[in-house]
This record gives sequence, structure tokens and C-alpha cells, in this order.
Amino acid sequence: MDSIGDSIYALAVKLFPICRSITGDGFRETLRIISDELPGLTTHDVPSGTPVFDWVAPREWNIRDAYVLDPHGKKIIDFAESNLHVVGYSTPVNKKIPLSELQEHFYSLPDQPDAIPYITSYYKERWGFCLTENQRKTITEDGEYTVVIDSDLKDGHLTYGELLIPGERKEEIFFSTYICHPSMANNELSGPTVTTFLVKWLLSQKRKYSYRIIFIPETIGSLTYLSLHLDEMQRRIIAGYNVTCVGDDRCYSFLPSRKEDSLADHVALHVLKHLHPDFVRYTYLDRGSDERQYCAPGIDLPVASVMRSKYGAYPEYHTSLDNLELITPSGLQGTYEVLQKCIECIEADERLKVTVLGEPQLGKRGLYPTLSTKQTAAQVRDMMNLIAYCDGTRTLFEIAEKINVPMWDLVPIVKKLKEQNLLESID
Amino acid sequence: MDSIGDSIYALAVKLFPICRSITGDGFRETLRIISDELPGLTTHDVPSGTPVFDWVAPREWNIRDAYVLDPHGKKIIDFAESNLHVVGYSTPVNKKIPLSELQEHFYSLPDQPDAIPYITSYYKERWGFCLTENQRKTITEDGEYTVVIDSDLKDGHLTYGELLIPGERKEEIFFSTYICHPSMANNELSGPTVTTFLVKWLLSQKRKYSYRIIFIPETIGSLTYLSLHLDEMQRRIIAGYNVTCVGDDRCYSFLPSRKEDSLADHVALHVLKHLHPDFVRYTYLDRGSDERQYCAPGIDLPVASVMRSKYGAYPEYHTSLDNLELITPSGLQGTYEVLQKCIECIEADERLKVTVLGEPQLGKRGLYPTLSTKQTAAQVRDMMNLIAYCDGTRTLFEIAEKINVPMWDLVPIVKKLKEQNLLESID
Amino acid sequence: MDSIGDSIYALAVKLFPICRSITGDGFRETLRIISDELPGLTTHDVPSGTPVFDWVAPREWNIRDAYVLDPHGKKIIDFAESNLHVVGYSTPVNKKIPLSELQEHFYSLPDQPDAIPYITSYYKERWGFCLTENQRKTITEDGEYTVVIDSDLKDGHLTYGELLIPGERKEEIFFSTYICHPSMANNELSGPTVTTFLVKWLLSQKRKYSYRIIFIPETIGSLTYLSLHLDEMQRRIIAGYNVTCVGDDRCYSFLPSRKEDSLADHVALHVLKHLHPDFVRYTYLDRGSDERQYCAPGIDLPVASVMRSKYGAYPEYHTSLDNLELITPSGLQGTYEVLQKCIECIEADERLKVTVLGEPQLGKRGLYPTLSTKQTAAQVRDMMNLIAYCDGTRTLFEIAEKINVPMWDLVPIVKKLKEQNLLESID
Repeated sequence: MDSIGDSIYALAVKLFPICRSITGDGFRETLRIISDELPGLTTHDVPSGTPVFDWVAPREWNIRDAYVLDPHGKKIIDFAESNLHVVGYSTPVNKKIPLSELQEHFYSLPDQPDAIPYITSYYKERWGFCLTENQRKTITEDGEYTVVIDSDLKDGHLTYGELLIPGERKEEIFFSTYICHPSMANNELSGPTVTTFLVKWLLSQKRKYSYRIIFIPETIGSLTYLSLHLDEMQRRIIAGYNVTCVGDDRCYSFLPSRKEDSLADHVALHVLKHLHPDFVRYTYLDRGSDERQYCAPGIDLPVASVMRSKYGAYPEYHTSLDNLELITPSGLQGTYEVLQKCIECIEADERLKVTVLGEPQLGKRGLYPTLSTKQTAAQVRDMMNLIAYCDGTRTLFEIAEKINVPMWDLVPIVKKLKEQNLLESID
Repeated sequence: MDSIGDSIYALAVKLFPICRSITGDGFRETLRIISDELPGLTTHDVPSGTPVFDWVAPREWNIRDAYVLDPHGKKIIDFAESNLHVVGYSTPVNKKIPLSELQEHFYSLPDQPDAIPYITSYYKERWGFCLTENQRKTITEDGEYTVVIDSDLKDGHLTYGELLIPGERKEEIFFSTYICHPSMANNELSGPTVTTFLVKWLLSQKRKYSYRIIFIPETIGSLTYLSLHLDEMQRRIIAGYNVTCVGDDRCYSFLPSRKEDSLADHVALHVLKHLHPDFVRYTYLDRGSDERQYCAPGIDLPVASVMRSKYGAYPEYHTSLDNLELITPSGLQGTYEVLQKCIECIEADERLKVTVLGEPQLGKRGLYPTLSTKQTAAQVRDMMNLIAYCDGTRTLFEIAEKINVPMWDLVPIVKKLKEQNLLESID
Repeated sequence: MDSIGDSIYALAVKLFPICRSITGDGFRETLRIISDELPGLTTHDVPSGTPVFDWVAPREWNIRDAYVLDPHGKKIIDFAESNLHVVGYSTPVNKKIPLSELQEHFYSLPDQPDAIPYITSYYKERWGFCLTENQRKTITEDGEYTVVIDSDLKDGHLTYGELLIPGERKEEIFFSTYICHPSMANNELSGPTVTTFLVKWLLSQKRKYSYRIIFIPETIGSLTYLSLHLDEMQRRIIAGYNVTCVGDDRCYSFLPSRKEDSLADHVALHVLKHLHPDFVRYTYLDRGSDERQYCAPGIDLPVASVMRSKYGAYPEYHTSLDNLELITPSGLQGTYEVLQKCIECIEADERLKVTVLGEPQLGKRGLYPTLSTKQTAAQVRDMMNLIAYCDGTRTLFEIAEKINVPMWDLVPIVKKLKEQNLLESID
């Protein structure tokens, strides 16, 4: 039987070939495939030109084909082979130019000669081709080269997907992930695929909190979504995670919210400390994704990131080497499970108070060995430590931190003590 | 001339043979001998069955004799040789049983073959014999063994001793110690004997604070005492110490109150830091004595522990090896002196304010060398540092911590500066 | 062309020979020479005997000549050669005494046989001669020695210099330096000379804050000045520095104000951390100059010290070896520049708030590269980090600390962002 990691990986494989950008048909096609997994997902279109805080929703970009022919008419660069070959948002072009002029439109990475770089130009009109440094070195023949980019950039829509899942309370836990990069795996598809399967699991759970999940283009998408929902988000969201770069197997990492002390931050650190204590801990100065918007001054949402190899921190980042070999079923599943534990901790957290003065007599309730020996003290240590700190000022999460045990080890003990009327919730 | 340590040790020797338990004649006999040293000590009886928070005062247990005869009628285990041989609170028994059945009532320690373990069963009715693993191995002969425990377990009283010593103020410093273990030395007799001599010294002192000292059975005794005096204790006690395991020579140790930041905690740490800087520092998670009740949620008294080798942290703990060879006069005296210094610090602490603006001119008051050289600056450093921080916001104790000198070095300087009207108390 | 350090050094050379004390003609002559550089400097006289908090303004001491003649009439000690030869505030004397009696008036340093010690006796009447240990060993001949000190100690004045420089605001930045030591260089002349040139620079600047600069005798001068201006100083001074020991080349050092957390403290630490990260960090317990008065309880001014080799912490301190060879133009200039940066930081500090929600679009304002590549992210990092923390709760200085860049690197970015209306001051 397939593991959950295998299922997540399979979805990434299906989405990989699509040429996504911050707008356009590739974005919508990706959303449609995800909708097959999450029928409740709704699609929203915001017209190009709509003001979005300091920005405007961009024109929509679509591309059908692109290639370069050498002076002999041979196709030496072909968009059909890799959608990374074209600079994102390239304007249409169809002409013959000499090599020297063509070179000005070439982008390659001398330090990574086997990698096609991922380059975009959303806010200035240009066109260009990306290729490996090794290939570029072979293009030396003088003569007229034919460059064709069959794209268009015109008014249309910025699209995003949204899923609202109700819980017992109106307070929300928020997940944001982006689907605006073409064929790249860790920095792109790991995020939406892990999020998709996390939501599938969530839908099967009893939920104290409501959930807000969005699939957006990075930056302009979070700005757009915020501009439409800021008030509601500020009132409701108690914890959020930006899900990106969650697919490889090399490490776990954490990047805090701007204020660094939200529930989202504390819980993620707790889970990582207990499950993967060698995780890499970044600061907000290392940020680089949508937390830049969610945590901006005046917005101030409690959004942190649990990642594997972080954007910008692994050599394949933003190149064709960030491919399906870089991510793994186990890598995807590992982050899926960490985020699951984060949700479980937030869901289970509550302020607790012991109902009796002094230590309760556990023996008469069958909670304590009746014969006192040197060994028995240690056996009930966790239960007694929990009780010792249930003073009505601390939440279960804070107690788990204080007594340095995983919160999920305490949840069944809380259940047992509540059944004995020894603990009460006081929220 | 005998040291104070010798006197404390002598009292421990006198109390050692008595068979104490959480109730009964051994407890009362111990209290009577301590009363000889502390005539003001009063004895209080609480009837069995009295509700005590989540518990009830237990029935009273007394034992007169106990032994095992082998199939030849030879006495192979004898309570008269060691009161540890009988499981505490054993129900009466008098019958012949085969070895196989007897074995189910034997308790020994395979890892410590020379030690008789200390076992109790206060809250479930059982009987049993404790013996060394080495002796147990010699009892192999089949046949009928005679087991006799001449005990009774019936309604009676839980007893405790209390001594209230008035001071200038109603605020109290609290000492609690227990006398419920049979013949064991560090974990039992070191506590009440050091406390007894500390109180004798206290009675000879001028006291700003009042003192509350109790001699109780552990756990059920502190619960019982709290249930009778909680209000008063919460209103009055500003610092307290549980006195246990204060008799050996191997180390000093400290275990904080639950909130970790009471005056009792800070002062004990200050004294240990300056007198015995290599002391072992435990956390509240390592607790195991009556601080579990005094610091429980809703009770929240500021009770910490200064110890030598802590209960559970030395190999002889709760066995016959915790005997009079384990504790020493110097070991007992060392903790006596640490607790004395704690009391002196608390008694001398007060908020102080310098009476002049700018540094006072010490020269004209004979407090400062009149000739200024490179050397003289250092000589008055402590006095000047004290003055520099007497700003009315800090107490003397806080200043001692800030300038990192033992508080007792500052007490005579404060006296001198008050005589010169340079400092005033502002409490 | 001379560096600023050369100019500061030249002033120190000019002031070096003058025999200063806490009162008297040498003090006034020093003030007069500084007035040549700072025409706005005003001179103030406080009569001897004026009460000054716990002290009184001392009598004025002047000395014209002093020497010792050996039994042959040969001048073996001569004030004209070094004004350190006479104990400061020596009473007049003119008599013949035997060597044994003369020895009681000799001061030398056995551990530093080549150094004449600097000794004073302000508050007890004495007379004495200071000499090197090596010279003292040569004075062995019995016979009558002639001792002459042509001094007088009588009612007069305690003098100080004051310069008030207005700024846009009434809040003040305070500099205090002392001119009461005879011919010594690091512990004395480095302070007033660096301060003089700092003020000359300040006078040429646009100033948000007003400035209060005083040239005083140490201790009694700061007490006197405080006793006359305390109210005003407490109301106005937001940051202050005591300028002393700022002339050698061996290290930088920092000594905090008593409360350790004033703007003066934080800014000095920031500047030193970025410019001279290996600086020596002292605590207030290491204090020894006028911060003892400025930070005394009830006075509580935010006065810290940025120094080179600190008083008491270098071997030449308070001896004839603290001479013009110990200080250097580069040593003086280094501290001058650190204090300049402190002033610039305080002047530029303000609370800032970004004017848009979400990250601003820097591209449309020409503040951001239009082509997104792996490299461009790092280039705008400082600007983005600044914007990320301009949330109206933090000042520019606090942001510089948070994002760990020198505040002076952010000042031009703030200017640019304000021009684009992306940042606003909210004080």
C-alpha cells in the first residue's frame, strides 16, 4: 500500500510539466487538478489593474510556444523541452537577429553550468531565453538566429484558490501555499501538494478551529488576498503557516513570524525540537516568501514557516535542477507529519486547572501503584508534573514546554485526568 | 568541646532505633524526645478518617513484634534486629505457609544485595517482609514457615508537632521536616535533628519575623497541616524550607519552589553560591518531598529545599544502608550553617536609600582614607558599591546580588552607614 | 594637511605643562586656552565654603614654587621640572629637617621605580613630595634638608567652564570632562581636548538636540555643577557622556551608566560593536569618574563613558608616565570619531512607520532591480529589512540593532524612502 508520501509525490509528478506563472492558464490548470482532490476548493478571479495596496493586479500572461533557430534553421532552444527556457512574462517576439544581439537575451549560470536558471520579469517588459552555461558555450556560429516567443500579455485576471473549513470556533488556522512557478519541485510543488493532503486529512478530523487555506501566486497573490480579506483575517487567524520548500530529505528548517512569539512559532519549534531536534533555525531576516506580506507592519498575522531545505539555501534553488529527483515521498511526508503535529498541538491546547488542593490521591483512583518502591516514583512522573503545573495560568502547551515532554504525550493523560474530574478546562 | 554538629548527630543517634511510621507510637515517641530539646513544641492529634483535601487521615498503625521462623522453628527474620524488615503498615498475620507463598511477601534488591529495602503500603492492605538479597538466597528449604506480624491498624490519630515563635512582625518564615521513616539517617533523621538545633539557635536571637516550625509525617502530614492552616499560611509565610536529606558530606544541593522565584529560592541560591559554589542545582521537576504539597496549584507557598545528597539521588536511599555511618557531624553542621545564613539574609533584608544626593563625603566621617593613592580606591569599593545602589528601589539582598558579594559582608557596612545617617530603611 | 587627531594632540601639548588642581590659577589658565578654541565657553566661580550636597566647595590652592635642597644646598627635587613632584593641595612649608623626617613626606612607587606618582590630599592638610623610587634610593646622606613649598590654600573659588549650544529641541545631549590634573595626558588632557574639537564640529552641524558641555574639576566639580543645575539637567538630558581617558591607542572601552539601559548606553555599544568590536566592556562596578555623581541615586542621569585605556586599568595611570608619549593623534581621533557617531545616531533616531500595507513595490519607484535573479535578493536586503520593521513601535536605532547593521548605513536609505513617501516619522 502506498504511503501518504507516495500519494503526495504522485500529485507533484502530475503537476510538474505545467507551465505556471503568477497568472494565466497554467495557474488555472494547476488549480483544477488540485480541485479534483479537494472538491470544496473555490476559484476566484481578480481583474488585471485592480489596485492591491501599493501594487496592482498584473496583466495576464500566456505562452503557447517559444524557440530559437540557428542560422541553419535548427531548433537549438525549445520551450517544449523545458518551460524554464523562457524568461517568465516574456513579451512576444518573432524575428531574425544576429548572435551578438541574441546573447543580450540569454541567461545562464556560469557557476552551475548544467542548470537552466529560472528568471522572471513581471514588472518590466522584456523577453529572454534561459539555458545552461554548457549549452550557451556551444552557440558560437555567427549568422541570423530566428527567435520566436508566441506569448501574450494582456488584461485578464489574477486567479487564486480558497478553501474555508468550518470548526467549532470561528478562530482560524491559516495555510498559504503558492502555485506560480513552472517546472520546479521543492520550491513550488512540494508546497501545494503537501497542503492538499494535509487538508484532506483535516476534513476527516473533528475540528475545534476553522481553517482557511489558499493557493495563490507568490507575493502579488498574498497581497491581493490580504487586500480583500484583511479585516477578517486579523480578527480570526490565531496561527498560520506558509507552506513552501517542504519536499526534500536533507534537513528540516524553521523561519519565524516577524514578531517571533506567536502560537504558530512556539508550536512549530516544539514539534521540531521533539521530532527533528537538528532542524535549522532561521530568523525573520532570512525570510523570502509570503510571510513578507502576512507579517508586514499593519498586517501582522502570526504566520511562520516549517520547511525542509529553504528557498535560497540549496544549490538547485530557482534552476532546472530543482526537479522531481530533488524531492522524495519521505521528504514530503516528513513535513506533512510535522504540520499535522502542529495542528494537533494547536487543537489540543487549552488552559487547565487541577480541581483539588494539594496533590490528588491517585491510588484510590487506580492511577498510581499502591506499593511504594524506589522504582514507582519515576513511572508516574509525567502525570505528576502535568498536575503540578495545571494551575490555571498555563496552557497545556506551556506545560509541555515547561516539563519538556512532547505535548502529544500529555494529551491522553489529560483525557484520563478529566475523566476522573481531576482537571478542568478554564478557557 | 562538642561542635554543634556533634550535638545534632547525638540527637540522631538517640532517635535512630525508634520504629516510626506516618502514624503511631514511634512517631509520638520521636516527638517527645524532640520536645525535650524544644519545650515549646506542641503535639496535635487529628482523628483517623478526617477528610484532608483529596485524602483522609489514615488509620493508626502500631507494631510490637514480627518475625519469620523456618521449618525448624529458627527465627530467620526478626523485626527486633531491624525495623526495616517489615513492610510499613503491614496488616497482622500469624500463620504457617509454604516457602513458595512466603516468597510472594518478600522484598529485596537484586542490585543492592546487602541492603534491606524500605517498603511501605499505606493505602492498600498487605503484609510483607524486607530482607537483603543475600539473605533471601539462603532461604531455600521447602517446608512450612511461621510468619508473625503483631501489628494493628485501626482508628486512632495522625499526630504532628508544631512550634510557633513570635517575632516583631507577623510575617513568618516556615520550616517543615518529617519524622515518619523508621531507622534511616540521611533521609529522615538529618531533617528533624538539624531543624531542632536551628530552632534552639533561633530562640536565642532577636527576630524581625515570626517562625512556624512543624514536625510531620511526609505527604499526608503536610496535606493535613495545610488543610487546617492554609489561609493563615498563605497570608503570613514569606519564605519556607523543607528540611530533608541534610546529613551527609558528599555535596550540597538545591531544589526550588514551584514558582522558582521566591525570596526563599533567591536567598538559598545566594548562600550556596557564596559558601558552596559547587552545589548541585535541581529543578522543580526533580521534586519528591513536601514541596509537592506546599507548592501545589492553589496552595503556592514559597517553599524551597537546601539539601546534601538528595532523596533518590544517592545509592543508600530508602534502604538499610542509609544509616548512622552515612551522616556525619560535619555534614549536619554544614547544612545547619547554610540554613542559618538563609535566615540571617532574610532577617537583614530591607529596602535602603542613601540620604544624600551625589556620593557622600566619607572622609569627613572617618569612613575613607584621607590620602588618595592608587591603592585606596579598591579598599572602599564594597562600601561605595553598596551606596551606589541604595536608590530605594533595591533591597539589600538585591544589592548584594548586583554587586556580587555575600549579603553578610554588607550587613556591618549598613550598620556603620546608618549610624552616620547616610542610609535609611524605607520599607 | 593635519588630521583632526593632530589638532587635538597639539592642544594637549599646549595644555600639558600647566599645573592644574581642582581649584586655582592652573585650572583657570587651562579654561582660558580652551576658550580660544570655543569662544562661547563661559567661566563660572563658586565661592569656597559653598555647600554642595554632602560636601562644601574647597578652599583654593595655588603654588608658585617648591623644591628640596640637600645638606649641601643642592636642589634635588624641583617643582619646576615636574609639577607632579608636589602632593596636590600641599600646605606651605619652609624649613630644614633631617632626612628621617623628610622620608615621612616622600611618596614613591617601589613597583614602578621610574615613575613619579600623582598624589593629592584635598581634604586633609598635609605636605609632601613625590619622586621616583630610583631617585629616592639615592637620597641617603644624613643631615639637614631644606624643604620649600611656596603654596597657599585659602578662600577663593571653585571654577568651571560651561557651553550651552541650542538645537531645535530643548532636550539635551550632555558632555562632561575634567581639567583638574597636572601634567598627565591620557587621564586628563585627552578628555578636554577631544571634547573641545567635538564641540567645534557640533557647532558646524544642524542640530535636533541642544548640547550642554562642561569643563570641571572631577568629583567636587560635578557635585557642584549638579547642585546648581539638577532640576534642569533631569528634565532635559536624554543622553550624556563623561569624556575621560580617550587618548591612547591600545584599546577602546565602555563603562555604562548605573541603570545600564539608557540611550547613551545603547548607542555607545552599537557604535563600538560596529566600529571596534573588540572593545573592552566594563560594568558600573568598575566606575571611577564623574558618573559616580551623575548616576548617583536621586540624580540618575543617563551618563556613560566611551574610553580608550580606562583609568586604573593601565600601568602609567596616575604617574608621570601618563605623558604625551602615551597618547597619540590617532588614539585621540579614534575616540573623537566614536563620539561623533554616537551623536549622529542620537540625532538621527526617530520612530518610523511604513506608509503602505504589505511590502511596497520598489520596482515602480526605481528602488529595486527589475530583473529577478538569485543575486538581486541580497542587494536590497537592508532596505527590505528596514521596511519590515518600520511598524511604528520601533525607532531607527532599535531597527538597526534588530537587523544588525550600523545605524549610519540606514540613514541614507531612510532619506530615500521618505522622499518616496514610503516612510513617515511618527514621533
